[in-house]
Amino acid sequence: MFAKKLNQMIEERNSLLCVGLDTAMEKIPAHLRQNAEGLLRFNREIIEATLPYCSAYKLNIAFYEALGIEGWRLLKKTRELIPDNRLVIADAKRGDIGNTSRKYAETFFRTFDFDAITVAPYMGSDSVEPFLEFSDRGVFILCLTSNSGSRDFQYLPVNGRPLYELVAEKISQWNKRHGNCGLVVGATHPEEMRRIRQIATGLPILIPGIGAQGGDLATTVQAGCEEGGPNALINVSRAIIYADDSPAFAKAAAKQAAFYQQEINRYYNPQGGK
Amino acid sequence: MFAKKLNQMIEERNSLLCVGLDTAMEKIPAHLRQNAEGLLRFNREIIEATLPYCSAYKLNIAFYEALGIEGWRLLKKTRELIPDNRLVIADAKRGDIGNTSRKYAETFFRTFDFDAITVAPYMGSDSVEPFLEFSDRGVFILCLTSNSGSRDFQYLPVNGRPLYELVAEKISQWNKRHGNCGLVVGATHPEEMRRIRQIATGLPILIPGIGAQGGDLATTVQAGCEEGGPNALINVSRAIIYADDSPAFAKAAAKQAAFYQQEINRYYNPQGGK
Repeated sequence: MFAKKLNQMIEERNSLLCVGLDTAMEKIPAHLRQNAEGLLRFNREIIEATLPYCSAYKLNIAFYEALGIEGWRLLKKTRELIPDNRLVIADAKRGDIGNTSRKYAETFFRTFDFDAITVAPYMGSDSVEPFLEFSDRGVFILCLTSNSGSRDFQYLPVNGRPLYELVAEKISQWNKRHGNCGLVVGATHPEEMRRIRQIATGLPILIPGIGAQGGDLATTVQAGCEEGGPNALINVSRAIIYADDSPAFAKAAAKQAAFYQQEINRYYNPQGGK
Repeated sequence: MFAKKLNQMIEERNSLLCVGLDTAMEKIPAHLRQNAEGLLRFNREIIEATLPYCSAYKLNIAFYEALGIEGWRLLKKTRELIPDNRLVIADAKRGDIGNTSRKYAETFFRTFDFDAITVAPYMGSDSVEPFLEFSDRGVFILCLTSNSGSRDFQYLPVNGRPLYELVAEKISQWNKRHGNCGLVVGATHPEEMRRIRQIATGLPILIPGIGAQGGDLATTVQAGCEEGGPNALINVSRAIIYADDSPAFAKAAAKQAAFYQQEINRYYNPQGGK
């Protein structure tokens, strides 16, 4: 089961931290900004520096796609840099009709061999099912996102309850098929996360929105983690990988990753519950 | 304005047909199945054969991504094969927080120079805005999809109205920013399409679900087209490109494309309204 695998990884590493590799030419240190080789070197140094502090890496696919063919080469090489004892997530937010979702699932689970993916829920069960069929991989489905636009649809009242709660319920149902569903819930909504945690008990939550997006760490950890579980990965991207834009960037990233690992552990105590 | 550009294209070509290039190794004729070069040859022959009958091509990005780096090369080369007097749509169904959506918008509008893209609505306005900012490009946002899973969320009652109607309203509002929004509405829901057509008056609708997915052409054309407009593109993928798996596949595709062009025009008469 995916949740078990994730929790084992978290326990072995003593870390709930996921490092987000949102690698962009315009943001990396100037001395690496020449070409895709520079981006790969940036990713390599970031991964080597942050490995001791995290359980997972999340590759934001958009940042690789934007570079065209070179970007896909970078994606493949970056994925290969990450050792087997870390979870590697394709943050792709895909979702389409069945035969098309199947192609996306093949892309990320077979062609690139990611351990997990993020998926959009709007098109419903048969758009998610082809991802779920890879039963040894994890599928994190968007529930309540960290951005301000989450207000447009995710909070709409459906029979007196916000839409995101119904999405959480549906994800819990889908999880019965292959036991490999998770949810994406932004750190900017700790109150709502508590409610989602109750609806989707036992399912892993991937939590973006810490750091650059402003989510509060203490309340996030308390709302998102389960006792014994913790069934939660907390992603930090920009605040770690762009901590410093000098040639000493990797050292600064390591320091930030260590900080987040410790801060999260301070609020989540695996021995004594939360 | 995008709608005007689309309608001009449709008038010049006398066709509402969009040909969907869902090109997959396992489906193309056996003699081309060797490698990516074979896929490119397939696309080239399909495009040359169907050009006289369509106004647009829709590239289903999943099918290219699934091939990894080779697939992105194929995507680029295929896009370059299509002449300027046809609209080229990236069927990508992307959508993410602002800085990430911006990267996707750059990918498809700048790196690959598509004229339009499909986008998922769940994450709301700031996830769509970076696409809209490319004001000379079209953004078709998922409203009511053709698959059975559309029942899971898109029909949920929000204050007595189905969610997809509220999505249609929101898209109409978003359109006021740059005048380049469109909607995706599946051909499998003609009754609902009539209602959406009233809500999103003047906005182009991209209509998948004809052919392999079983949508009815006559009712679809009558429900989806506007008088004078028509503000509608009707996509057919598999029923055209896989009409025949012999070496004469391109001829069969041309015949099918001509059939769909004529059938659509039979139900939609640009001179006399519908």
